[in-house]
Amino acid sequence: MLHLHSRTPDDWAPWAAAHIDEVLVDHAHCEKKAASTAIGLLFRYPDHAPLQTPLSALAREELEHFELVLEHLAARGVPFGRQRPSPYAGKLMQVVRGAEPHRLLDTLLCCAVIEARSCERMRLLADALTEAPALADLYRGLLASEARHHMLYVDLATELFPDVDVRARLDAVCAHEAEVLRSAPRVPRMHN
Amino acid sequence: MLHLHSRTPDDWAPWAAAHIDEVLVDHAHCEKKAASTAIGLLFRYPDHAPLQTPLSALAREELEHFELVLEHLAARGVPFGRQRPSPYAGKLMQVVRGAEPHRLLDTLLCCAVIEARSCERMRLLADALTEAPALADLYRGLLASEARHHMLYVDLATELFPDVDVRARLDAVCAHEAEVLRSAPRVPRMHN
Repeated sequence: MLHLHSRTPDDWAPWAAAHIDEVLVDHAHCEKKAASTAIGLLFRYPDHAPLQTPLSALAREELEHFELVLEHLAARGVPFGRQRPSPYAGKLMQVVRGAEPHRLLDTLLCCAVIEARSCERMRLLADALTEAPALADLYRGLLASEARHHMLYVDLATELFPDVDVRARLDAVCAHEAEVLRSAPRVPRMHN
Repeated sequence: MLHLHSRTPDDWAPWAAAHIDEVLVDHAHCEKKAASTAIGLLFRYPDHAPLQTPLSALAREELEHFELVLEHLAARGVPFGRQRPSPYAGKLMQVVRGAEPHRLLDTLLCCAVIEARSCERMRLLADALTEAPALADLYRGLLASEARHHMLYVDLATELFPDVDVRARLDAVCAHEAEVLRSAPRVPRMHN
């Protein structure tokens, strides 16, 4: 259902759980970035009516999650602040073709795949965080939103582009995403 | 209370009300821009803890208003889309000094003043829109948020900078803003 072309290796979740404070800071940045990306699409495509309200509502939800993760960081006494980001999203977005309307289709599908990977990883984290039940609950609560956001981005693509194009391109983006993850540096981040 | 250095001329509101569909489209863009500016501050200042949650919550509220204005546009059968923006915000921001921490202080105060001017204008529009009671209600409902956002930006500045600096700089930004408005082109926009 999440369209991903690879499974996260079994050793990722225990390792991420062992570095959970660093992953949490990254997670907060990711939620903020997800909101910013959705708003960026609103600025780039003001004439695409089907995008406006759904992406605005999605951005609001990402910001709610940003605030929620900040609360968990504060509860753990971990300061939020600047952190070297994962190269994941930047490398993933290299698959986006420059010319419209391809650029829009590819961007929507990259966003879809990031949400899908987040969903997969949050499920793994929820199970691995046996010693931090509040965080396990956090991730169990969030993963449904990630799956919903994944579907929203795929649905928006399907509303704007022919089914056959969406399917073919989603396949290509997912193959690229699996490749990006395989070469990701081993730093504790949500998408490394 | 709003710190503004000029009153909007009496002929603005009847003229804006006579071009309300164009003003409404501008208003939707302004709400989106306000959200984007707040998120931009989160990206630029991740290490300033007092900014994080308040600006995220403010951005969510701006996006709610964006969606609300889109609903009113749809109800009136007015398409939302690309529109030549008012030069107001760009010219206002020219007062921002380039070096930190001045840049942060000035940006917070410019945001404060934009919210203040929006509040003043929404009150005028609410009174002028006698023939569009749904829109009069919209503006009556929104102006309290604008006043609250104005105070939030001033409060954040006061939390991060000495009172005396905030007061002096707010005065300078308000004087500049009044000048920007005096030379604004006569196009139906929220801040022209």
